[in-house]
This record gives sequence, structure tokens and C-alpha cells, in this order.
Amino acid sequence: MPPPGEALVRVRLAGICNTDLELLRGYKGFAGIPGHEFVGVVEDCEEAGWIGRRVVGEINCGCGACPGCLTGDPRHCPGRRTLGISGRDGAFAEFLTLPVANLRPVPEGVPDEVAVFTEPVAAAVEVLEQLHLAPSDRVAVLGDGKLGLLVAQVLAWSGCDLVAVGRHPQKLAILQAMGIPTRLEEQGVPEDQDVVVEATGSLPGVQQALKAVRTRGRIVLKSTVAGSAPLDLSSVVVRELTLIGSRCGPFGPALRALAAGRVRVEPLIQSIHPLSQALEAFAEAGRRGALKVLIRPA
Amino acid sequence: MPPPGEALVRVRLAGICNTDLELLRGYKGFAGIPGHEFVGVVEDCEEAGWIGRRVVGEINCGCGACPGCLTGDPRHCPGRRTLGISGRDGAFAEFLTLPVANLRPVPEGVPDEVAVFTEPVAAAVEVLEQLHLAPSDRVAVLGDGKLGLLVAQVLAWSGCDLVAVGRHPQKLAILQAMGIPTRLEEQGVPEDQDVVVEATGSLPGVQQALKAVRTRGRIVLKSTVAGSAPLDLSSVVVRELTLIGSRCGPFGPALRALAAGRVRVEPLIQSIHPLSQALEAFAEAGRRGALKVLIRPA
Repeated sequence: MPPPGEALVRVRLAGICNTDLELLRGYKGFAGIPGHEFVGVVEDCEEAGWIGRRVVGEINCGCGACPGCLTGDPRHCPGRRTLGISGRDGAFAEFLTLPVANLRPVPEGVPDEVAVFTEPVAAAVEVLEQLHLAPSDRVAVLGDGKLGLLVAQVLAWSGCDLVAVGRHPQKLAILQAMGIPTRLEEQGVPEDQDVVVEATGSLPGVQQALKAVRTRGRIVLKSTVAGSAPLDLSSVVVRELTLIGSRCGPFGPALRALAAGRVRVEPLIQSIHPLSQALEAFAEAGRRGALKVLIRPA
Repeated sequence: MPPPGEALVRVRLAGICNTDLELLRGYKGFAGIPGHEFVGVVEDCEEAGWIGRRVVGEINCGCGACPGCLTGDPRHCPGRRTLGISGRDGAFAEFLTLPVANLRPVPEGVPDEVAVFTEPVAAAVEVLEQLHLAPSDRVAVLGDGKLGLLVAQVLAWSGCDLVAVGRHPQKLAILQAMGIPTRLEEQGVPEDQDVVVEATGSLPGVQQALKAVRTRGRIVLKSTVAGSAPLDLSSVVVRELTLIGSRCGPFGPALRALAAGRVRVEPLIQSIHPLSQALEAFAEAGRRGALKVLIRPA
């Protein structure tokens, strides 16, 4: 039986995120089971109506009493535990538990291989939650990794003048096929952008963002650059830039977008491994240029 | 005769800013005459109507052709020269020249000792140009130096829940006399602030701002921290903070505020020196805890 208020979920598919790779390198000192991107089926739960339902789950489990939690948003609860990241075992296992409040039913017709992207798509959606992107804004997304490819797709909804910048022609081709303009980094970073989203997860990416953004423009920091990055604050002041940190996003709009096909995630799947090959899966996910590696526990 | 389109201004009073102290330490490699805070009288000019008028002057001289300049705002012109900071001799002299377009008449009744603060008051006003401060916002200004004392006074206009944090009881007393709540740094930095303005000009100040701001809150970087500061970007991302660089501001609102007595600057005057004692003036301005040192050329 799961703890009171929680559900026991049989994991059907789980995705490896760059954060998982960092956790294995010691980030945040987490020693539990990683994995926070999943789709599964509720096996047991006090609220019987959930049993047998296919679900995804918001990963932040709040205290239930702080102002954020009381307004239904535990993403910044100071006492939060986060699935597979801190204080709570994650999805690279046959089963996980999550508070019922965190569960979101997966619409019929959305296959597991799509639903498993709900969490990273929500993280991409978060940029639109935070920023107004006008259709006339020039916007660059730096990085053609898993997150960058999702962010570019979501920002394209705004009708902005978008360009995705990356190093891998075959990844950028995924966006090109959707009508999103792309550019190889070696062709030079675009200049004078109203908004630049840093999704490379690297310090050079932050420096490129500073170079690409116009004076008084906005830079969205979408990846957790672990450790202290030597950012030159004086250019932020002199050029009156705005830096906006961006993390977890809302599941509702992400599920709607996936159900409506407004984000294409299948081309992002690199491979699917059984749980018994988790180490091989991580090795593959850690290779330069790898896209989304999925683990299927059963 | 001044160059075409420019005015020859006899400097009556000029203020030493921390940027001037940095310039003397090699910041920006400027080798001209420093000084960008001044009040003076136009001595010569093609447009005869200006001659004899008491003026202050916007310090950024633009190219006149870029989009910013064409909309009347040369503050971010990529080809700008800045009075006493880059490419143009400044105010610690008997005379200076500035484009007529940069001149602003000083209202009668505003003494020189007040008008000379127009540029730093404009820099404080810039925060309100950039941010909406709601009356219910909790706002902390870190730093009780010259800039911090002006920023606190200007932000108080918003009706926000303000606290000014500093190290010098006698400086904070200037704000207390105006009804602005203050706090000594040794009593601890306030927490959970919606907005924190970093006006200490130091790396510890930036770190304190990160500690004082609430999750999803805004930090205004008001001082040019020269060189690379090792800012930990991961906390900006995880806590979804917004960092906003802030520099030069608009002279119109600053002059209106000074004329209306909405900012009190006289208590900020540390001393007034003749130009012949400029070195002594700089030495005094560079002492820890010094407020505004003024230079009177004649």
C-alpha cells in the first residue's frame, strides 16, 4: 500500500534527462533512484477512481501548507521533495509513489512514447508562462539538445521571428521539417535578438546569449548550469539586460499540446532500453549529440 | 567656439561618482578628463537662445542615426561617446562641450548644489522606468552609498513596503528623517523580498541580494561591478529569479523631482573643493563611507 494520500504507480516508460546525468555525477548529493519523466498506470490508491488509470505526474511534492502549495503550485515550496531529484525515489524503477494531487490523467490516444515527454514539454511551456513573446519579437533558442528542440517548438506558437541555433544538422532538421528556421552555430550566432533562450547548459552558451541579445533584451536561462559560472555582471548592467531563470512548468498545457500534436516528440526518441540495461541507457544518453533515451521497466 | 551643434559650458559644480574612482583605477581605459555629473552655464553656442542659460546635460552622445538615437534616446547607441567616461572629456574642468540636444535647462529656484545631482537621480529614476513596483511589493535597497540613498528615495514614491539596508547609521539616518525604514546590515538581510536593488557595488552585495529575494522575485543590478563576478547561475534558474541591469536614466523626471523637493540631496553632500584641489577631493571621495564630494571649478 502506498502512504496515505499517495498512489502506487507502475512505471511504463521513463525518460533520461540531462539532470539525471548530472545527478549521477553528484549534483545535489542525491543518493536515491533518479528519474522524473515518466508515464505509468496507477496500481493502488485510497481513491479507487485512480486505479488502472494511465498517468503522468508533476514532480514537485510540496508541504501543503506554504503560500505556494495553498494556491496549488508546489513548484517552489521551500520544503518540497522532488521525484527522482531530491528526497523522493524516482521513475527508473518498476514502481514509484506520488501524491494523488500530483497525478495527471493521460488523454486517450496519446501513446506512452509521447506522454513520457510531458515533463520536459512543461518545462518548455514555462518560458511562455513567464514571458510575453510578441509576434514581432526576434527570438533565438541556443542549443539543439532535447530541451532546446522542445523550447523552440513551443516558442514557435507565439508567431515570433524564431531561429534555433545548434551544432547538429540532423537535429536541426527536426525543427526545419516543422517550418522552424535554424542555423548552425558555426555560421555565427544571430545578433540583436529581443529574446535569447539559453538551452545549451554550458557556460559558452551563456556567453553566446549575452552576445546575441540586443541591448535591453531578455535572456532566459533554461538549463541548470551546475556550479558557479563566471558571468560578467557589468555587461548586464551597462546594456540593461534582463536575465530570467526558468525551471519546471505546468503539466496541463503540456498535455493539451501533446494531445493536439502541437509539439512533435517522436523524432526526439533516440532509443528505448529495458530497465535491466539502465547503465547502458545512461551511457548512451551521456554521449555527445544523444537525444532522448527512454527506459521501459517492464 | 564649440564644434557645430555643440555648446560650450562653463562648469559651476561637478560631482564625483564611484565610476570616476573606478576610471582612475583603469576602468574602461579612459584617459581623458573624467566627470559626468555637472551643472553649468552655456557660454557659447550657435543657437544663441542657449547662451547664459544654466544647464545640466545628458551624458550619452549618440551617433544620431541608429534606431535609439532616432527615437531621441542615445543612452544605448552602440557608437555613443559618454561625457567623462568614454571618448569625450568631462566636467572636472573649467569648461566642457556637449551637443545642444543633450542640454536640459535647470529650473529657477533649484540651486547648483541640488542640480548637480540630476544625473545620479536620473539613474535612480531608471529603476522605476524599468520595473512596475506595486504598493504592496516588499522592496529592499542594499547599500547606503550615494546611489543607494537616491534609489531608496525614488523607490519610496511607489508606496511600496521599502527597507534600505546599509552599514552606516549616520547615512541611514538621512532616509529615516524622510520616513523610509532602514536596517543595519549587521541585523541581517531582510528575506522574502519581491524586489531587491543591489546598490552596494560589491560582489557580497550581489550574494546578499540573491539571499534576500523571494523565489521568482526580481533583482535590480544598479551598480557596475567591474570585472567578472562569479555569480551562481543555477540558483537563478532553480528559483526562477529575474535579474535586471539598470544604468542611466531620464533627466526630465529627475529635474522635476529635484525642483519639487521629492528627492533630498543636500544631506548627501560631503564637501565642496576647488578644482585646484581635485586630487584631495578624489582622495576624500575614495574614503570608506564618503558621500558626495563636489568640485567647484571657479
